[in-house]
Amino acid sequence: MFPKHHGILSPVVTPFREDLSPDPERFVEHCQWLVSQNAGLAVFGTNSEANSLSVAERRFLLEALLLAGISPDRMMPGTGCCSLTDTVELTRHAVAVGCAGVLMLPPFYYKGVSDDGLFRAYSEVIQRVGSPNLRIYLYHIPPVAQIPITARLIERLLREYPGTIAGIKDSSGDWSNTEMLLRNFQPQGFDVFCGSDPFLLQTLRGGGAGCITATGNVNPAMIHDLYANWRASDADARQARVTQIRRTFEMIPLIASMKAVIGWKRKDPQWAELRPPLDRAPKDKLEQLCARLDEIGFRMDPWETDRHDA
Amino acid sequence: MFPKHHGILSPVVTPFREDLSPDPERFVEHCQWLVSQNAGLAVFGTNSEANSLSVAERRFLLEALLLAGISPDRMMPGTGCCSLTDTVELTRHAVAVGCAGVLMLPPFYYKGVSDDGLFRAYSEVIQRVGSPNLRIYLYHIPPVAQIPITARLIERLLREYPGTIAGIKDSSGDWSNTEMLLRNFQPQGFDVFCGSDPFLLQTLRGGGAGCITATGNVNPAMIHDLYANWRASDADARQARVTQIRRTFEMIPLIASMKAVIGWKRKDPQWAELRPPLDRAPKDKLEQLCARLDEIGFRMDPWETDRHDA
Repeated sequence: MFPKHHGILSPVVTPFREDLSPDPERFVEHCQWLVSQNAGLAVFGTNSEANSLSVAERRFLLEALLLAGISPDRMMPGTGCCSLTDTVELTRHAVAVGCAGVLMLPPFYYKGVSDDGLFRAYSEVIQRVGSPNLRIYLYHIPPVAQIPITARLIERLLREYPGTIAGIKDSSGDWSNTEMLLRNFQPQGFDVFCGSDPFLLQTLRGGGAGCITATGNVNPAMIHDLYANWRASDADARQARVTQIRRTFEMIPLIASMKAVIGWKRKDPQWAELRPPLDRAPKDKLEQLCARLDEIGFRMDPWETDRHDA
Repeated sequence: MFPKHHGILSPVVTPFREDLSPDPERFVEHCQWLVSQNAGLAVFGTNSEANSLSVAERRFLLEALLLAGISPDRMMPGTGCCSLTDTVELTRHAVAVGCAGVLMLPPFYYKGVSDDGLFRAYSEVIQRVGSPNLRIYLYHIPPVAQIPITARLIERLLREYPGTIAGIKDSSGDWSNTEMLLRNFQPQGFDVFCGSDPFLLQTLRGGGAGCITATGNVNPAMIHDLYANWRASDADARQARVTQIRRTFEMIPLIASMKAVIGWKRKDPQWAELRPPLDRAPKDKLEQLCARLDEIGFRMDPWETDRHDA
């Protein structure tokens, strides 16, 4: 049995070359840095533009991480696609290479589908993968996928596949939903991760497992410190600081802002590339963001040292 | 240059075997019947559960049609996926085998994306495919994809790629949008297809090219007759009859109802299979539907003759 995920995971942003092909070198570098900052790798999430990648591109990037010697224990790749066969292929691959878990979107093209249909979708994947090593973290992100993972669906999945259904990422942005999950399911060993770091302290106080958060890509150490010290007397102040940085990044759409800032800090503007349909941040907005990040003393080590030395 | 599409096209429902794999034999039979009824083949649309298929499965099914001798002149496969690389692969394949056009969803995972981002998405596909034989029919289906194709986007695409942007399927269900498209774009040779047969007569009277309609799977001859006789004095009565049949099928979710009825008429219940997350129709609802279809005299030739002979 693989160790369970806990703590902070980053839905790793995916770097592209000028021709919009995924760039394994920049990807490996970024993941190595994240792991060094105590962040787990929720590669191929929403913030990874994973649904803008093909199945082959995702497999290729995951293989690149393994070839670079990064432990699959730290990985929770996103494997949920619209197509049953794609989801099965990616999930099988993740399990075969030893990933500690997978983060699984429901099929998201058809809207207004029933819990029965979603149960059958997850069920087919679990049965086809057919491995005792499979651990699924459900991915609840109704603002984007538009397909909610309801309490009724979780209950039914947990009853049918207790060893396999391992937890959830709640990206609803609705604290009352996270609270319900913590109350109803966390006591059964079903691990609840909030989907955004401003909710981290509340989630941990409610017994949750941690956070899978976009800004884990740019601020992993500070978020991990909050996780590690959530019982400390200054926990609320730490949370406030984490939240301040998050809100600053949100001045422009988050994927664009994080990629641009990584490019800025690494002095590697190619990092700012996005696959369509997403757009880069406008230059003026980006300058405002960087100025504000400087103002609030945001740092990305070790590049800060380099920068100030230069 | 390939001939332009016009008239009636069916977004062909995709038959599955018991193991949920796509069934090329039933698919070919159904497509041969549709062509015999004067319907074009908009394979891999929403009603085809195309987004529940992998890229390889779609290519395989398209090849099966070609191997069976069906002309690619009659085909408008859906090729728009979330992933740029998937869309390019499917579009290249469709063009390489000579399909008369492709029906292209915008990338639909990310919500609230800009027209600039969508322009760039279509642009990248067109440039990568790089063929003068490519004809794109834009697929506007905001109730499902949640990503609208706006007039501003169409204008920009038509200006940049006048030989390639061939038309649109309007599945908004909003007649005022279809009217706007007919007024603003049809005169430029941009072919407007309504996305549902109840709008067919209005669309033709407004100068439109035809209809790409779910119930083209079960009622193609009658819909085609309306298309062929839209100037006849009884056109409104024909439209009313077409609409009556459509509304009857809508008693239960349309993909389930059509597949079940095809199975009923062909005495082949395996046809009713759907891939998750979609569900089969409940038995009682289905019986009500079939009774109602009998009541209004709905027929699917040639199986009716067989049935009454039996």
